[in-house]
Amino acid sequence: MTTLSVDLGDRSYPIHIGPGLLGRGELIRQRLRGNSALIVSNETVAPLYLARLRDALGDLRLQQLVLPDGEQYKTLDVLNRIYDKLLAERFDRRCTLLALGGGVIGDMVGFAAASYQRGVDFVQVPTTLLAQVDSSVGGKTAVNHPLGKNMIGAFHQPRCVIADTDSLASLPDRELRAGLAEVIKYGLIDDPAFFDWIEARLPALLARDAAALTEAIRRSCADKARIVADDERESGRRALLNLGHTFGHAIETASGYGNWLHGEAVAAGLCMAARLSARLGWLGDADCRRVEALIAAAGLPDRPPPQMDSETFLELMARDKKVQDGTLKLVLLDAIGGARISADYPADALRAQLDAETGAA
Amino acid sequence: MTTLSVDLGDRSYPIHIGPGLLGRGELIRQRLRGNSALIVSNETVAPLYLARLRDALGDLRLQQLVLPDGEQYKTLDVLNRIYDKLLAERFDRRCTLLALGGGVIGDMVGFAAASYQRGVDFVQVPTTLLAQVDSSVGGKTAVNHPLGKNMIGAFHQPRCVIADTDSLASLPDRELRAGLAEVIKYGLIDDPAFFDWIEARLPALLARDAAALTEAIRRSCADKARIVADDERESGRRALLNLGHTFGHAIETASGYGNWLHGEAVAAGLCMAARLSARLGWLGDADCRRVEALIAAAGLPDRPPPQMDSETFLELMARDKKVQDGTLKLVLLDAIGGARISADYPADALRAQLDAETGAA
Repeated sequence: MTTLSVDLGDRSYPIHIGPGLLGRGELIRQRLRGNSALIVSNETVAPLYLARLRDALGDLRLQQLVLPDGEQYKTLDVLNRIYDKLLAERFDRRCTLLALGGGVIGDMVGFAAASYQRGVDFVQVPTTLLAQVDSSVGGKTAVNHPLGKNMIGAFHQPRCVIADTDSLASLPDRELRAGLAEVIKYGLIDDPAFFDWIEARLPALLARDAAALTEAIRRSCADKARIVADDERESGRRALLNLGHTFGHAIETASGYGNWLHGEAVAAGLCMAARLSARLGWLGDADCRRVEALIAAAGLPDRPPPQMDSETFLELMARDKKVQDGTLKLVLLDAIGGARISADYPADALRAQLDAETGAA
Repeated sequence: MTTLSVDLGDRSYPIHIGPGLLGRGELIRQRLRGNSALIVSNETVAPLYLARLRDALGDLRLQQLVLPDGEQYKTLDVLNRIYDKLLAERFDRRCTLLALGGGVIGDMVGFAAASYQRGVDFVQVPTTLLAQVDSSVGGKTAVNHPLGKNMIGAFHQPRCVIADTDSLASLPDRELRAGLAEVIKYGLIDDPAFFDWIEARLPALLARDAAALTEAIRRSCADKARIVADDERESGRRALLNLGHTFGHAIETASGYGNWLHGEAVAAGLCMAARLSARLGWLGDADCRRVEALIAAAGLPDRPPPQMDSETFLELMARDKKVQDGTLKLVLLDAIGGARISADYPADALRAQLDAETGAA
């Protein structure tokens, strides 16, 4: 087992990564502040892992709630089912919510914890690669709104993150690939040696080599923990973690939540950010092609869906959380491993790039 | 104008109290961090005061949203209408929500601000006595759930509180009286001289004497600001502010939100807390009668609704936010001006008192 720490003063917490961790209930129990917990999972993950987690937790007062699986269920209505359960079972302020599943479960359960009785504890038990490398770490919680991804939420840090690498064995190939998009993102942001490593180890990652996956998770979490510790509430540098996400969120919203996986939309978004950066002359063409080649080799989409046009992109991107007084900040690339947050791009370059992406130019 | 401060480090903010403040837009403008704001009000308050506030704010980018009036609308569904408006009008993270109305508007708009894009600014512009003396100060935001009052929410401090005492002129008598319940509460918690003052000045308060009302608001806010500054997130002493509220929330939930005003339920709850304290021998009988007499003289209910029984009270109180690992803490009285938080009361005394209150004993 590898343990990292997210350093946030009295809200610091450990990330445990390794095989067999679902059976190590003491990792969770030692972080609880009360004696009751609600495990929230989904219909796909619960049959596989819920009993194992329950058994490992011993004699806590435990309840469970199983929700439907998919991004289209990350809504206020489904969130309300968590509140219903908590109140029907009389969970008090000292309870802990355990999020067992992928990014949708983690984000939604985290927001339920942030808002139930004005805030209770929660623990992330991510079972997908995407959740293990990205969404379970850093305290961003949210549900979607029909007009925008993750528009309703809170910053609320978990008490710990338990990433059992054994749970990746059951992950569909499509979801494994989607997780790799976020792994590649960390290399692109500020870790060029990690990008090189991903290029070299991609076949092993796709073949689910345990050592390669564990290293990818460890390094992704370490990169993310460092950025989050610097800027917990995204007043600056943390927005780098949104590389590819402004384009990606627009794709997810336009396509209908759940049709593109989040990681797939991010993959296309990373390529779009690279190509816009190349158009601006910030990123060399060869590096841009390296990004596209790695995304394609990972079996991920490198283009937006053909039915989207520039207007739709601009309309949805105008609602991005990085818009400030009418100006949209984008995360763009000066180099592989050299991302920056910028409002200093010409608006017509963005427009021209979107036209090129969507076949209008 | 009187100005108090809630001292919370970098989240400190002023409370301005006085006549004509709705016309003093600079008090709000100087606290804004962006150039856009959404005024949220209700169908009762908006026709009276929204235009005045709008005109005073000058050339901000302003939008408005008018919601139905009443505790029964403090729900996730109505909250969602605030998100809809914010997203449809593309409000970004630097926007400010302005809550113009009573406690329902303040609590709900505050929670919308806490959760929109993971947190934006808001300003409280309370127009009822209850909101001016209590709910607008301290950062507790929430909506109700069918199974419990204020069960979904966040701690989120406003940027400032603007209490225009002129707005009390339009307040129905019933709501003025409801506000006095919270004023009396501050005297009971830790300010016996204020309790004496309220007894002496009650006729002036009921006659809406401007100087008396302003003094009641100032002193209530000062008492509350002091307690909140000591314990922002209610890990201890802040729970004193819930005197009367455990009984009161049960009354509101059992009666159907909106049938009893919050202040009315708190008034009955204050009397129930006093009588239970007297039963325990903590509060003298003469002081208990003084509490009941002041509540009655203010035209407020001193008994729970006749249709409630002990079982209903115990069932609803078991979901109170002060329950910890199965034990309900109550705020009780050792004296007028001497409240304490206690789990040290005999359960059968609570049961016997509820039986006596509800006619079963």
